[in-house]
Amino acid sequence: MRLVTYRSSVTAAARLGALVNDLVVDLQALAAYYDLELPSDMLEFIDLGPAALDTARKIIEDSTDDWPVGTVFYAANVKLLAPIPRPRKNIFGIGLNYVEHITESAHMLENAANLPNEPVIFSKPPTTVCGPGDAIEHNAKLTQQLDWEVELAVVIGQRAKRVSEEDALGHVFGYSVMIDVSARDCRRAGQWIVSKGQDTYAPFGPCIVTADEIANPHALDLWLTVNGVTKQKSNTQHMLFKVPYLISDISQGIALEPGDIIATGTPEGVGAGRTPKEWLWPGDVVEAGVDGIGRLRCPVVAV
Amino acid sequence: MRLVTYRSSVTAAARLGALVNDLVVDLQALAAYYDLELPSDMLEFIDLGPAALDTARKIIEDSTDDWPVGTVFYAANVKLLAPIPRPRKNIFGIGLNYVEHITESAHMLENAANLPNEPVIFSKPPTTVCGPGDAIEHNAKLTQQLDWEVELAVVIGQRAKRVSEEDALGHVFGYSVMIDVSARDCRRAGQWIVSKGQDTYAPFGPCIVTADEIANPHALDLWLTVNGVTKQKSNTQHMLFKVPYLISDISQGIALEPGDIIATGTPEGVGAGRTPKEWLWPGDVVEAGVDGIGRLRCPVVAV
Repeated sequence: MRLVTYRSSVTAAARLGALVNDLVVDLQALAAYYDLELPSDMLEFIDLGPAALDTARKIIEDSTDDWPVGTVFYAANVKLLAPIPRPRKNIFGIGLNYVEHITESAHMLENAANLPNEPVIFSKPPTTVCGPGDAIEHNAKLTQQLDWEVELAVVIGQRAKRVSEEDALGHVFGYSVMIDVSARDCRRAGQWIVSKGQDTYAPFGPCIVTADEIANPHALDLWLTVNGVTKQKSNTQHMLFKVPYLISDISQGIALEPGDIIATGTPEGVGAGRTPKEWLWPGDVVEAGVDGIGRLRCPVVAV
Repeated sequence: MRLVTYRSSVTAAARLGALVNDLVVDLQALAAYYDLELPSDMLEFIDLGPAALDTARKIIEDSTDDWPVGTVFYAANVKLLAPIPRPRKNIFGIGLNYVEHITESAHMLENAANLPNEPVIFSKPPTTVCGPGDAIEHNAKLTQQLDWEVELAVVIGQRAKRVSEEDALGHVFGYSVMIDVSARDCRRAGQWIVSKGQDTYAPFGPCIVTADEIANPHALDLWLTVNGVTKQKSNTQHMLFKVPYLISDISQGIALEPGDIIATGTPEGVGAGRTPKEWLWPGDVVEAGVDGIGRLRCPVVAV
């Protein structure tokens, strides 16, 4: 299933939906038609676990030939928000997790050139999240080195504390796309939170593809363009620390909870790694995607 | 006012209270007695702003000589939780914010010895929070260098985005105490989130003292003992970047929201700065306080 959070002309509030071909199905409304209950909020839906997913799948199957009135919208007519507009916790970002990106980072960002022997974890506040089409803020008072990073995002489904690599994927709800926007000149004493943690620095979406539809999260092409020019193009097979390892590793000390997001790192091709270096400026348009999930297209705007 | 979140034998749920001498006043119950409404949750109370504070103050004044039945408990008979048991966002921690601590850190932790020219900000997930008396987890598989840091915690009352230093204190709801527990050997490529972000690494409380009762947040003694032996003893006047500066600085790029917490840094005397170095081990008891606010006492336990 491809789950979204959307806003339509008839509902001012953000609501949970499922993408079915060119339609957005309102899951709460469709459930009500069958005298069933589903929430209107993605996090509440994730909290409900596999039973809610099963219900959603069933009512969609039962309705596909004849959608009840008021339960579907053309996707083109609604505004998609980030699938989780407001996470309950900081996003966990993974630094230096694609080999070629480590090399370019060592060259241009003065990181160590050695491969890390454990995941480099950082944090993006929940206020970084914005949705498809939303503006990435460029505040020239704070940065002259705004950079892009396309990443596969993992959404946790069930609480994970001290889980093994073997069990880790059982805790995944689904996958999405995140752009880990980074102001390279805002690092402070090595800490990345100002660099990566500013409002709008985490475009997220357009949907969460549930884990059952991604047989292997390490066989996905991912790419990013700036103003239509390809800057990043790789495949998740090149991750140094794979998703099961990341979940197991974080969960050793930090409880991962339903709706938590891990941004799994970016491949080579960031602006800081180019010669000459390239940065984002107001008026630029960043587009990024992971094949099989979807794409985000966000303008950069001055604030 | 001294606000707490508590659990009593009659209420399994965490509830908002006010400390008045040796009593905990249940604010929702007391408001109901006067046909008024106050929430039972600290974050909802903070969201309501100054009007709710005024209501709480008034009904407490009107009741002090004769508490209505069922509205008060002896503080000794209830369990105090962290005043905000589950923040909505990562805690913002400030590193290297007391001059003498910078010196000891440079000596022992290989940080730069120079004073930072801007605040060093890091992040602790909401899952780090625990309350007075709660156990600090010692996981020997992850750390052999568990350290203490007593800090003044600032709780945001009103949203702050790009506020000036002059206006910053107007966005403060109140102050509390936090122990920024840090596993020194869990830093990764310089990033501190695993070091400082593990579950139970932010004992917090015992109360939030509202801002009106702290005339100057930079004239407060703070201290920490391990097994009764004083390890840290300083005063918030020695902060390098003061509270108004920190709020203004963070808010330039990151929206601070009601209930957000800033842990403002620790003075000298941490375990890593001692000769020989000292660490926390299971069986140890850490006690820490800020004068005028209160104290936390947390055992270290093996997990």
